[in-house]
This record gives sequence, structure tokens and C-alpha cells, in this order.
Amino acid sequence: MLSVLSPPDDERVLVDHRTGDDAGVFRLDATTALVQTVDFFTPVVDEPSDFGAIAAANALSDVYAMGGRPLTALSIAAFPEADFPPEWAADIVRGGQAKLKEAGCALLGGHSVRDPEIKFGYAITGLVDPAHMMTNARGRPGEVLVLTKALGTGIVSTALKAGEAPPEAVAAATASMARLNAAAAAAALRAGVRAATDVTGFGLLGHALNIARESALTLEIALDALPLLPGALELSARYQAGGLKANRRQFEGALAPTALAAPRAPFLFDPQTSGGLLLLVAEEELGGLLAALPDARAIGRTRPRGSHPLAIV
Amino acid sequence: MLSVLSPPDDERVLVDHRTGDDAGVFRLDATTALVQTVDFFTPVVDEPSDFGAIAAANALSDVYAMGGRPLTALSIAAFPEADFPPEWAADIVRGGQAKLKEAGCALLGGHSVRDPEIKFGYAITGLVDPAHMMTNARGRPGEVLVLTKALGTGIVSTALKAGEAPPEAVAAATASMARLNAAAAAAALRAGVRAATDVTGFGLLGHALNIARESALTLEIALDALPLLPGALELSARYQAGGLKANRRQFEGALAPTALAAPRAPFLFDPQTSGGLLLLVAEEELGGLLAALPDARAIGRTRPRGSHPLAIV
Repeated sequence: MLSVLSPPDDERVLVDHRTGDDAGVFRLDATTALVQTVDFFTPVVDEPSDFGAIAAANALSDVYAMGGRPLTALSIAAFPEADFPPEWAADIVRGGQAKLKEAGCALLGGHSVRDPEIKFGYAITGLVDPAHMMTNARGRPGEVLVLTKALGTGIVSTALKAGEAPPEAVAAATASMARLNAAAAAAALRAGVRAATDVTGFGLLGHALNIARESALTLEIALDALPLLPGALELSARYQAGGLKANRRQFEGALAPTALAAPRAPFLFDPQTSGGLLLLVAEEELGGLLAALPDARAIGRTRPRGSHPLAIV
Repeated sequence: MLSVLSPPDDERVLVDHRTGDDAGVFRLDATTALVQTVDFFTPVVDEPSDFGAIAAANALSDVYAMGGRPLTALSIAAFPEADFPPEWAADIVRGGQAKLKEAGCALLGGHSVRDPEIKFGYAITGLVDPAHMMTNARGRPGEVLVLTKALGTGIVSTALKAGEAPPEAVAAATASMARLNAAAAAAALRAGVRAATDVTGFGLLGHALNIARESALTLEIALDALPLLPGALELSARYQAGGLKANRRQFEGALAPTALAAPRAPFLFDPQTSGGLLLLVAEEELGGLLAALPDARAIGRTRPRGSHPLAIV
């Protein structure tokens, strides 16, 4: 939607929406920049306080994905006038607030509107040192791809809406979505990671493609190495939301010719809510990074740009 | 909606939503603080680019009202899937962008959702020196109340929706709503103003009441001194939106007993979009302030808190 605009003429804008990065970056002084993002969406789980926590973790994640430290939040809420118990609104707000507090992020205010469809989220502001920020453009050939959370939140959420998700699959997806990417970002910065993104609405391949394009690389991803949420593989054949199919149509052309009939293929395209970080890490730092992040998995590597930006191996 | 939350335990939060202030303030260091706000709403005019400009001027106004300087913006857009020409979206976005540029504010990104009802706005971040910020709590007795824009945008907009607003009334209201409060804020800071707010959804009395409460004052407002948009008085008897009536119900109890039957009374309660600043200025600075702001009017004064926080004289 912002594509109708011409590039900014303000040299303090270090990153804006044109690179597919997770957040915008605006230089305040030589060593400090604002890192800012906004996201809100309709409920992906049934429990209001879980939804609030997930909305907060998801919005905060864009700041972590840039290597930033969240400072402040403004809430954005659309709540229905009818058929909506007031305690749900309070529970959503409280669930989000608890998660902001865990992140050390202060809620400064917000805006709330009446809307037939529930939506909730935040605008988040953090600080980052521009010399150490992680972007889509800073990847190098020969790095290892690491994903810090399992895939499948879209599939489990779609099955949940159909009343067909096993409770243990829902519990695992909820816990994963509500988990902050703070520890993953801290470990990545310690490991010298310079290129990262979080995996959200465009799915693993969509976000990987941003890195491949901006860093002029080919990203090789090993389908069998992808971490999947418990129960998600069993649900994946039947519960593919519209977003998954749209991602497949949009991104499969970026792939080197490959068989996409494997049962795990839908996870390449599944839109994630509050997904993990996709990190590009030097080989010699991999062991330390994986030791610090028990749920993280090496899922591929980068090589100089070939005929296609993405390859499934 | 945020009232379910306990007060923040972060001493860097200088202002949050609890004081009815226009924006939150978060201290970065001794002389610098972030000033942040978010606002978005449904169209108040027919022309898409005007709507975008008004949405930007309105969101920026909260930063100006605190004495801040806007730096960055994130857009928030809800556009319908059907019956919505794509060029409208582009025109709204471009109209907003031109206004941000006029304010020297950089667009860093945004979030867009599909929604049957058009909504557009921004989260704005600025900087302010905490020693010179203008808040609801810094008013003193014996100051003059100055309003920097004419009232009546809600009345004109309601008449427009009914197809009954004269074109010249719409043009004047549109120009007023699209006008930045930048010059008003700069003149106020030069005049040593310490208490200010912008007049928006709660109408003149609702926002005046926040100042009266937080500064422990009674605000006397002269009904005959209120500046009104051209054509608005003629429309005011017939075109009172639900928001005007809700404001009257909510705020008339704060008034010293008075006759509210005067034709101008609806303007006390009319919700404003991108309204003017309500400034509390020392008597000796009034001449200079009014000379700098041709549209501004002195509309009353402050006195030590009496039996009621507001009085119409």
C-alpha cells in the first residue's frame, strides 16, 4: 500500500518499508536509532488473555528481529459493540500488558475503535545501535540459516477455527506464539549475526526471499530440517488457510524447480503469527547459538546468488 | 479501555493515558523524551487526499499539543475489499504523506488490513524536552484561555454526510482540519505556555475538563467568544452527531449551573477532528500570541478551583 510513495528524502531514515524489513529505523544520533513497527490482527486463539499476549509478542518481535531493545508501546484495539463481553476486552488488554512487562516495554497509550471484527495489536518503539542492527541486507554467502521457533501456527489456528485441532497442538502453538523473541535476538547478537528477520505473515519462504533479494544471495532450505509444531504435520493436509495458498502462489516462482509434493511443503508457505527469527550465522558461531537456544534448528545455508533466490534441498 | 491496568512501575514514563493528555511521554535522557500517540478514524470528508491529509494533521496534533517535534510516523489503514477503487487508497496515502512531509515527519512503515469500513491514521513519535513540555497538569490561575482553530468540524461533517452542507462550509472545515498545529505550538512555546491540549473527540468542554482536573482549576469559557467555522452555526441545530450528544451527557455535570439553551451551546460539545490547541497563556504574553496566530481567539480564563471545574460565562 505504501508502494505509491516516492523514497524518503530524509537521510536519518536508515530502513523503511521498501526492503521488506520488519521495522523502520530512524537515526537519532551516531550510536542510537529508533526502531519502530506496528501490527494488529484478528484472534488466532480462543482465550482472550492468550490472544493479548500473542499480539504483544508478535509486535515486539519486529524490534527483536532488527537487534533492537523495545522501550514503548501504543495499543491498537477494535472491539465489537455487541456480543462481546466487556471482560474479554479487559483480558486481552491485561494479557498484552503482562507480555509487554516481561519485555521491559512501557505502555504509553493507545487508540480503541468499535468494530464488528475483533482486532488487537501494538505500535512498538525500541532503540538500536545502527552499527549492530540486523537487517535483510546484511547476509553473506556461506552462512548457516537458523530458525528459532517451530513452524505451523497458521495450520493449527485454521484447524482450531474448524474445531478440529487437538488440545495439545493448540497448547503448543499458543505457548510458541506467546514466547518472546528476546532471548533469540540476544543470542544472535552475541553470535555476531548481522542478517535476520522474523517469520510472520508471508511464511518462511516469503521472509527468506526478502533476505535473498536484499543480500543478493541464494538461500538453500532443507525441508526435512524444518522444526514443526507438535501435531501440525497431521493437520497440514486439511487445514491450509487462504493466506497459505496466497503465499504459495506468490513465492513458488522464486524457487529453483523442485518437487513441492512432500508432506512438509505446506510449512514453507504457512503464515506464522509471532513466528521465530530466521538468522544467518557464521559456521563457527553455530554451536554456541544452538546451545543457547534449545528450540532453534539449523535449516539450511546461504550461497552466492544463483539462478533462483531460493532452493529447497 | 486501558483503565483496567495498574499504574506503570517505570519511572521513565513521564506521561501516560491516566491524565487524559494527548500523548504519552517517555524519558530517554535528561533533556530528551519520546512523545507518542496513535489515532485513526473513518472519513470525515469525501475527497480521499483531503482525508489522508486530515488524518495526518490530526495525529501530528497530539505531539504538537505536548510541545513536541514530530519525527516519525507509522500508518494504520483499513480499506474495504469491495466497492473501493484502488486509486482512493493511493490518494489517501499520498495526501497523508504530503502532510507528514510538511511537518518534517518521516514515514517509516505501517500496517494495512482489509475491513468493510475505511479507517486511516498514524502512530506518531516525536521528541520533547521534558522541562518545556505542555501538559494538562501545568495550568495556573489567572491565565487566559486561547483556542487556535474555529469549532464545528463535527457539525459540518455530519451535515456533509446528510448531503446538506454548503460547499463553502465544507471547504472551510476541510482547510481547518488539514492545517497543522505546528505554528500554534511554536508560538505557544515562545509565549511560555506550559498547559495545553488539542481539542478533538471529547469536544471543547471534555478537553477543558482534563486541564481543569489535572491543574486543579476552574476554567471560565465565554460562549460568545468562541470562534465558529463559517456556516457552522446555521447547521448546528440540525446536525448534531451521536458523539456531540454523548459528550453533552458526559460533561454537562462538570458545569456550574447555566443556561445551555443558547444557539452556540452545541459547539461546547461538538467532537472535533484535527481541532485547534487550547492554550493557557499568561496575560502579558497574550498580545504577542494572538498577533502570531491570526485565527486564534481568547475564549476565557482560569481561576482557582471553585465548586465546579467549568463555568460558561
